[in-house]
Formats: sequence, structure tokens, C-alpha cells
Amino acid sequence: MNPLKKQVGRSAVFRRTTREKNPPLVVVGSVALDILHTPNGSAGPIVGGSAVHCANGASFFAETGIVGVVGDDYPMNELDFLQKRRVNLSGLEVRPGASFLWEGRYSEGFVSRETLRTELGVFADFRPRLPESYRKPRILFLGAIHPGLQDVVLKQVARPRLVAIDTFKLWIDVARTEFMRIVKRTDLLLVNDDEVRWLTGEHNLLKGTQALHKFGPQWIVVKKGEHGSFLSSPRGLYLTHAFPVEHIVDPTGAGDAYAGGMLGYLAAQPRLNDVELRKALYWASVVGSFYVEGFGPDGLKHVTRAELNARHRQLCKMAALP
Amino acid sequence: MNPLKKQVGRSAVFRRTTREKNPPLVVVGSVALDILHTPNGSAGPIVGGSAVHCANGASFFAETGIVGVVGDDYPMNELDFLQKRRVNLSGLEVRPGASFLWEGRYSEGFVSRETLRTELGVFADFRPRLPESYRKPRILFLGAIHPGLQDVVLKQVARPRLVAIDTFKLWIDVARTEFMRIVKRTDLLLVNDDEVRWLTGEHNLLKGTQALHKFGPQWIVVKKGEHGSFLSSPRGLYLTHAFPVEHIVDPTGAGDAYAGGMLGYLAAQPRLNDVELRKALYWASVVGSFYVEGFGPDGLKHVTRAELNARHRQLCKMAALP
Repeated sequence: MNPLKKQVGRSAVFRRTTREKNPPLVVVGSVALDILHTPNGSAGPIVGGSAVHCANGASFFAETGIVGVVGDDYPMNELDFLQKRRVNLSGLEVRPGASFLWEGRYSEGFVSRETLRTELGVFADFRPRLPESYRKPRILFLGAIHPGLQDVVLKQVARPRLVAIDTFKLWIDVARTEFMRIVKRTDLLLVNDDEVRWLTGEHNLLKGTQALHKFGPQWIVVKKGEHGSFLSSPRGLYLTHAFPVEHIVDPTGAGDAYAGGMLGYLAAQPRLNDVELRKALYWASVVGSFYVEGFGPDGLKHVTRAELNARHRQLCKMAALP
Repeated sequence: MNPLKKQVGRSAVFRRTTREKNPPLVVVGSVALDILHTPNGSAGPIVGGSAVHCANGASFFAETGIVGVVGDDYPMNELDFLQKRRVNLSGLEVRPGASFLWEGRYSEGFVSRETLRTELGVFADFRPRLPESYRKPRILFLGAIHPGLQDVVLKQVARPRLVAIDTFKLWIDVARTEFMRIVKRTDLLLVNDDEVRWLTGEHNLLKGTQALHKFGPQWIVVKKGEHGSFLSSPRGLYLTHAFPVEHIVDPTGAGDAYAGGMLGYLAAQPRLNDVELRKALYWASVVGSFYVEGFGPDGLKHVTRAELNARHRQLCKMAALP
């Protein structure tokens, strides 16, 4: 059905659109099929994975290159919406075999989620290889993959202006020491409130964040879901709100899209400093709020830049000092 | 020991300082002795109760009159710090018998709290009687007492500019219909995030808040503890942050002090509108942050107005739009 599948061979690299330009933001992470069960119903298998969600959020602001792998069963046409924005898929490898599959169920009120199935498929042997055009990104984002693979990617790029990393409990569980070694080489760490507690043993988020700075990153963004986020930097703390959402359909990928919105915005700015990071957090919040309004990437799929801007104005109005 | 105890007789009204001026803010609530067990140690019996905590927070901004009752065992001298600020105790009745006693224990990380003991004492037969000087307050705050008593108070005042009410699960459990009848006659409802869900059955806070507006109040302040708060009004939503606190000693009374800070600030403003309410939320947040740094009222006891102002500036800096 999908004409693109014809190109697939052993270790083939998928190149649908050849772009000459080097994407200023390169994202490495999972590209997956998700089956989702929520209090509002089920969906899937639909496209997902941290790299897809992140690129989805980033694509409003800057051209984004994805590094990842999928099996030859992957519905590539469902990534068309990414290509229509500014997502570069030349780093997405298509290999014979099954794609990474994740199935999960959210509890009532989205209080917790349970993994029902994880089938790694071709992701099990993934060895990231960056196309030449990806090797000088302005910003590199190491999404939720094994720290060993994050290391492989880090070695293939010329020193980017900013290296950001996301935490993910699963991979840290199996490779905590490696993860900490990678964190040491990053500028910006994205972390959930729960993960701060779990990584540092500190219940208090501020103390936990201080402890995390000692591992290396000068910037730490602590994500608190519906409660917003904060940035911790040598210049102190900066607090931001989540855009309040009335009807949550599915939170899958919202954290990745949040990271994407933030890094995409930053990748498009001439300067990288605290002020730009603070602005980036507000854009990230807007991106994240759209994300939870649909299954997987759907919440943001048909959003226009004008809609994004309108919600950003709304958020600023709700959050401005009186 | 306490010379004030000499004044006590059956149904005596305690009047230590006679003030001619009518306090612009009148607060009705419990005046209690608390025994507190926290992960940081225990304290008590120390002075507490919603009226004490609220007046403590409010006293920085406006003269506050307390309506409440204590037994003749109450350590009145421990309320000296309130009188040194602008708290008027002429509405605090001293009756023969035991004071309201509450004992509670907080879990690790202050995730939950458990009531170990509640002895109502003289509070069981409390029938609020307002001194003449209290009967024309600019703002009336109906703190956490039985809705029947809130009604008694409401009937004794000339229509204030603003009537605010706080929710408290215990009293609503036993008198939900009465509570809702009172809420109908209030302008401002203060409520915890949990209580929104529990009062309306809505898990989503925005939907829950919309449902609460239908009960009457045009202004609703939803308190989310360390995650800040938001104001819902006919003009929309307004979001504020909690001031981040590194070391929480004891959260007892912080919600009451938050309400006090808010209403005290408002009582001192010539206008009561959305803009002033938004400003009030920021001051409330600062008051609340000091509160959790000590046992019971201690966190705010020795704080100066200059320290309050400094933290307010800090919060504004952390929260200002970039």
C-alpha cells in the first residue's frame, strides 16, 4: 500500500525528502506504535514515541531532524503531517522487522498509568547513525532511549550550542551509572517532579533540583504536568504555569511535545540564555496543552500557528503579574 | 499565672484591648489548641484554629477582628503576638471549660494527614455573638466552622462589601445542604483542589469550578498548596504560583493564613475588583510560604513587613512574564 515501503531493505535509511539544510534541532528517541487505553476510550496502534512527539511540538518553531528506527510495518504515511511542517526524517531508519510497540492504560482521572505491553522489535538492536546533515545541530535533544545510545549519538555530533536530555525511568533503572555519565555532558536536563525525588531521594523539589545540578547541567526544567514547570539555573528559579485544559483526552507524549516546543523555540532564537529559556517554557506549555486534547500526536496535528499564538496570548493574560 | 484568666466567668467576653475602630475584616472560625506530629518532630499543645491562623496572615495588612470561643484553660498570652499587630480580640469569648483540642499527624513528605484526636470542649456549644464594633465589617470571612454557625454570624452583620467562605470537609460532611445554602450568600469561595472534586464530583478542576459558580459565588479561589492557586471569576481564570519553600516544617494553618493574607490585603484596598483580587493572591502566597516554615503560627510570628515585602518581590521576579 505504502509506496515508501519499496525503499526498505536491510538497514535502509529512509529518505523521503532530501533537505539540503542542516536542521538546527536534532532529536533522538523512540519512534513507536502505541495502543492507548484511557478513561475516554482506546486508540491505536497509532504513531508515537518520544522522537515523534518531540518533533511534533518542535516543528512549529524550527526544522527538526529525527533520529530513530522503525520496522517495515510502520505506517510511514501517518508521519506525513510532520513532513508538512518542518520535520526532517532523513535520520529515521527503516529496518526489516516489527516496530517498537507500546500498550498502556491510564487510570480514572489520569492519576497513574500502567504498561500492558512493550515489544521492542527493531528498536532492540538500534544503533543510531546520524546523516551527515545532522552532525552540526544547534541543539541536540537526547530523548528517552538507553543512555548507551544517547552516548553513541553524542559522539557523532560537533559540539552543539545546547545539549538537552530527558529522563525516563525505564532506561535509568537499567543503566543509572551510564545515564549519570551522559547527564554530566549536558547543558539542560528535563525531568518530572517524581523523577527528581526518585533520582535524588529528596522529597523537596528545590533540594532535589539543587542535588541534580551537581551532576552537571546548568539548566534544569522540572515538569509538574498540570501544575506547570519551573526552570532552575545559576540565575535562580523561574516559575511557569501549565495552560489549564478542560478536557484531557490522552496525555501520552505531552511531556515529549513540551520538550519539543521548548527546544524548537530555542533553536530558532539567535541567543540562548535565561530569558529565552523562560519564553521557551511558555511556548512549551501551550504545545503541551494542545497535546493532551487528542490521542497520541492528534491533539497537535491540525493546530495552526495562529491557534498556537492565540493560546499563548491567553496564557500570558492569565499569568501576567497584576 | 495569666492575669487575664481573672476576667473569666460564665459566658464572659474577653476584652483585653478596647478598640474604638471597627475592624474592616471580621473572621469567624475555630480558636484551638493543636498538638502536631510531623516528619520534623512534634509540637504542642500550641495555639491554633482557623481564626487564629487567618488573623495572623491578615494582620499585616488590615485590622482584623476574631470571633471565636476558648475555654478558661487557653494560654491567652500566646495570642499577644496577634494583638501586637492589628488583631482585635474583643469577639473572642472565654468560657469555663476546655478549649477545642486537635491532634494530628502528617505523613512523610506531608502527603497526607491523619486526625488523632478532636475534643470540641467549649466549642461544642459555641453560639457566635458579635461585639457591636464588628457588625459593619468591610469583609466578613466565614472560616471553617459548622455552617449553622456561619449562618448565625451572617445574620448579625450589615451587608459587608465582601463575604468570603472557606470549605472544610468535616463540617460539610455533616451539613452539606446548610453549607450550600450559606455558599449561595457569599461572594468568594475558597476551596482546595481536592474539595472541588469532592463537592462537585468533577475530576477536572476547571469543570468543577464552573459547577461551583452555579452555587452562587462570583469569585472562587482554588488552592493547590505548593502548586499555587487560581482565581475563577466572570472575567476568566487567573493563575498564581506558590512561593517555593525549601524546608517545610508544618503546614498546619497555612491555608487559613493564605485566606487571611488575601482578605487582609483586600480589606485595606479602596476597591474590590479582579485586579485587587489578583494582587491579593500574590500576597496570600507569600504569607502561606512563611507559614509552613514553622509549627502552627510560628512561621509567621516574627516575620516583619519588610521580610514579607522582600519575599513578595522575589516571587514577582520568579513569576513575571519573560
